[in-house]
Amino acid sequence: MHVLKMVSDTNFQRVDKRKFVSDTIFGHVTIVGLGLIGGSLGLALRRRRLASEVVGLSHRLATLRVAKRRGAIDWGTTDPQAAVAGADLVILATPVDLIVPAARRLARFLPTGAVLTDVGSTKARVVRALDCALPPGLAFVGAHPLAGSEQRGIAAARADLFDGSVCILTPTPRTPRPALAAVARLWRPLAGRVIRMSPEAHDRALAETSHLPHVMAACLALAGARAPLAGAVPSFLAMTRVAKSDPELWDDIFFTNTAPVLAAMDRYAGVWRRLRALLAGKRRAELRRALHLARTRRIALDGR
Amino acid sequence: MHVLKMVSDTNFQRVDKRKFVSDTIFGHVTIVGLGLIGGSLGLALRRRRLASEVVGLSHRLATLRVAKRRGAIDWGTTDPQAAVAGADLVILATPVDLIVPAARRLARFLPTGAVLTDVGSTKARVVRALDCALPPGLAFVGAHPLAGSEQRGIAAARADLFDGSVCILTPTPRTPRPALAAVARLWRPLAGRVIRMSPEAHDRALAETSHLPHVMAACLALAGARAPLAGAVPSFLAMTRVAKSDPELWDDIFFTNTAPVLAAMDRYAGVWRRLRALLAGKRRAELRRALHLARTRRIALDGR
Repeated sequence: MHVLKMVSDTNFQRVDKRKFVSDTIFGHVTIVGLGLIGGSLGLALRRRRLASEVVGLSHRLATLRVAKRRGAIDWGTTDPQAAVAGADLVILATPVDLIVPAARRLARFLPTGAVLTDVGSTKARVVRALDCALPPGLAFVGAHPLAGSEQRGIAAARADLFDGSVCILTPTPRTPRPALAAVARLWRPLAGRVIRMSPEAHDRALAETSHLPHVMAACLALAGARAPLAGAVPSFLAMTRVAKSDPELWDDIFFTNTAPVLAAMDRYAGVWRRLRALLAGKRRAELRRALHLARTRRIALDGR
Repeated sequence: MHVLKMVSDTNFQRVDKRKFVSDTIFGHVTIVGLGLIGGSLGLALRRRRLASEVVGLSHRLATLRVAKRRGAIDWGTTDPQAAVAGADLVILATPVDLIVPAARRLARFLPTGAVLTDVGSTKARVVRALDCALPPGLAFVGAHPLAGSEQRGIAAARADLFDGSVCILTPTPRTPRPALAAVARLWRPLAGRVIRMSPEAHDRALAETSHLPHVMAACLALAGARAPLAGAVPSFLAMTRVAKSDPELWDDIFFTNTAPVLAAMDRYAGVWRRLRALLAGKRRAELRRALHLARTRRIALDGR
């Protein structure tokens, strides 16, 4: 029956055939915040018919209009109560700092059994706060799709943003299993792989692999972007690309994950000092071995 | 006449129409070393008919065979004298360490008036050595096309590798103007832009914009590539991509440009320490301003 319904749809050609079986697994889904991630989620959910209704909540009417025009939402509103009344699933796609206050504010309007989730880049602080803050009958499940871009806003949203990406769910012992299962059902058709980690392990891993590279890119842009030729050297442009990201968003990430980021920075600085000593000391064979090891470790990631 | 000749060629479709006027500006060109850069130069020269004959010199027969099969050379040899006899232009595309000894060894076989040039990533040491080392009647002109890849070898060579790139020529007061003009004629049809800098200014600029990012990528690969999720985070993969480069090649670059690289590393480390202090000190407004400035400087490069 589901297949028949989809075949009659004009967007049939765009639907990945693998996804037919997961047709309409949610009823009313509300996306709070229609930026790059929220907008892309809306596009992906609607294109794959994973929800019977995708509702957008934003404080900007212009954003709602663009989201509607681009097909990221069925309808949108600036009224929190109207947006989440009857929602089965609420996806908080706001900046990290706003996730906890938004969840608290929306909770009173949500029907019992509704599940809240987020897409924030740091997890421990948010998950810890929401584990105890919601009324009985509501559950929060932390999630973080490892996908994005240095661009921001609904204009940059893409239905395929999450294709092939890894999405991390960060349940705790307090997370109700049905809520976790619901958020896994959301991401399984969208991401390439869905994995679970504790919020703390997530934050340490992301500090090393995402927040640290971001600090590096910002420092390189500050140190070198005005050097002659900076705009002509492909590796300089590649290594500073993420410095174009939204400073407000990254400021949030750094200050909700400060200790792990500082630890990752210090670990990196230790490697840096060793390499600098090899270069300054003309210890060529040792430097070459370090470069070989760096190469081997990096190439190993491509095989995964 | 030139146009007629090219129209009859089966590769006509691939030839950029802008380039017709520069048809066959060199006679016998020898490329010494058929790796990524040497091989790509051969492909580009032959595709655009910029030389009547492109000869390859390599110490590996297998490399010469692949270069011939891929169309990067008209013919090749492992014999230095045979390779450069009658050459108008000799392009040294070996690792940086070998440029000076190769030039010295080939000089005795070269006809008077021949021009030598290179494609090395550091310039001061090579240019200083060759400014005084060649017999009268031979000239060396340093060149560095800002193009490449973390891949190596003739198998990775591409005729379009230099398209849109900047090529830097590094003449000195001793460089004969006709030799400089010849090397400019070589690169003008291949690169997007040809500019001149002193060898020392080149090395300082590249230390800041290319060698420093390479050190950063190697350190990040060493520090973080074994962290959970490293292979799943797009920014980690992007920021460590150049760590996959050939360690021998980079070892050469670092040890032929040590002082500028150390200076660039220390300048960067100063910015790093300031950012770390802002994060550790919870100086959020200041960190945000730094991220804004990094973003602004980086975006300014895209407009160029």
